[in-house]
Amino acid sequence: MQGKNINQIGIGDHASFSKTVSETDVYNFAGVTGDMNPVHINQEYALQTVFGKRIAHGIMAVGFISNVLGTQLPGPGVIYISQAVKFLKPIVIGDTITATVEVIQKDEKKNRVWLHTYCINQKNEIVVDGEAIMMPRKEV
Amino acid sequence: MQGKNINQIGIGDHASFSKTVSETDVYNFAGVTGDMNPVHINQEYALQTVFGKRIAHGIMAVGFISNVLGTQLPGPGVIYISQAVKFLKPIVIGDTITATVEVIQKDEKKNRVWLHTYCINQKNEIVVDGEAIMMPRKEV
Amino acid sequence: MQGKNINQIGIGDHASFSKTVSETDVYNFAGVTGDMNPVHINQEYALQTVFGKRIAHGIMAVGFISNVLGTQLPGPGVIYISQAVKFLKPIVIGDTITATVEVIQKDEKKNRVWLHTYCINQKNEIVVDGEAIMMPRKEV
Amino acid sequence: MQGKNINQIGIGDHASFSKTVSETDVYNFAGVTGDMNPVHINQEYALQTVFGKRIAHGIMAVGFISNVLGTQLPGPGVIYISQAVKFLKPIVIGDTITATVEVIQKDEKKNRVWLHTYCINQKNEIVVDGEAIMMPRKEV
Repeated sequence: MQGKNINQIGIGDHASFSKTVSETDVYNFAGVTGDMNPVHINQEYALQTVFGKRIAHGIMAVGFISNVLGTQLPGPGVIYISQAVKFLKPIVIGDTITATVEVIQKDEKKNRVWLHTYCINQKNEIVVDGEAIMMPRKEV
Repeated sequence: MQGKNINQIGIGDHASFSKTVSETDVYNFAGVTGDMNPVHINQEYALQTVFGKRIAHGIMAVGFISNVLGTQLPGPGVIYISQAVKFLKPIVIGDTITATVEVIQKDEKKNRVWLHTYCINQKNEIVVDGEAIMMPRKEV
Repeated sequence: MQGKNINQIGIGDHASFSKTVSETDVYNFAGVTGDMNPVHINQEYALQTVFGKRIAHGIMAVGFISNVLGTQLPGPGVIYISQAVKFLKPIVIGDTITATVEVIQKDEKKNRVWLHTYCINQKNEIVVDGEAIMMPRKEV
Repeated sequence: MQGKNINQIGIGDHASFSKTVSETDVYNFAGVTGDMNPVHINQEYALQTVFGKRIAHGIMAVGFISNVLGTQLPGPGVIYISQAVKFLKPIVIGDTITATVEVIQKDEKKNRVWLHTYCINQKNEIVVDGEAIMMPRKEV
């Protein structure tokens, strides 16, 4: 249950998590966050939007990124410093999303790691793109 | 069910959403995102961290921000362009979080709105701070 | 709210529970157990397996068995001693599963009941087969 | 997203997953399985049992075992052949459960792995003890 410390992390290291986004996910996410924007939970409304169907909350995909950062790279013990994301394409219910994080820079003195963080769908389209700064667990 | 278009939005406009973060929220968020970092779901582990107890996923608070952006300001019809956040303090189970968004800039030609987006806890401490760019619904 | 005591249970007694396994069931089960094996939550991955689609967690079907044991036969007050199961066929989303328990042996002195426990799908195929040992509630 | 094949698995290999069992877990598990035994969801009833409070479904802990088998050891691509468990102690809401699987035998010809599978609580008491037989993914 211990993540990597900064000496165990190298530029280019990467890790991923994939999930098919279900209606259940969208509804549970709406329930937790209270984000009842009709584009997520109202099929009649969504039919009339440019999306043509209910879309997932973009922040859910950022949750998949957080999953990889917190459980794999750097993993447990890490502290999340910051996250920036651009939402490039909508995620519709049924899309399979793969969140990937890749180390692009590190600073041993400050104990900071920079990661490219992005999500693609099953068509290999980038749906979310961004960058995270993490403080890995201290060496023991 | 219609959000504001750019002409209905002024600099300084703001809106908020508040929720006490429950264990249920944290567990459902973990279930949706797959983020089973022990700091969120393992009390014994969390006791040994600097936090001393299980903390919520920081991205959940960003979900509260997304809630306000998508349901109030600008509201339905908006497209989420980007979000940047810094995680300044941990959110523990039981904290009451208020997410606020405030318009800081707008560009009618490009149909873009910039908002200061932040979350405070019940002690008025800023726990998440950042900025969003939104594209409000088109005028009809 | 009282289950049967051993004198109220006879060899051959049986009880059942049926449910169509939904995507929601699979996703909630994954969320509770943390079992994010892609065969359960990743449609693209599942398409490439021998199953051809996402399958339910086999243990969910054992949960249906536990349901029958705990609510019907022997019912409330029972203590679950042991369970053995073989997983004979996959359960795909949309399958209707019937869990049945049937008393095959009992020991009044030790207050133990042995039950044949199995699940079939809508095609009458046995998907899970096994045996449970239960300690029914004490006589009052 | 590929688990280990039988040549990558050695006797003594082990892996674990830990979670504090919340009321939410118990209720979601009850909702999915329909197991509404009052000992799990009725606090007034539970107060009068030997447990003195609501207990988790024993099968949930087997779900944690399935999690480790399906995501870590052997991991994705594995087929679950069988599982036997004894329930040695109750799991109450708030207990932190660690599920561990350890390889005790393997048969390359039949492509089968035997694992000791057990769960302990935060007091290091064994709550569930058993054995699983798994068929790891085929070599590619």
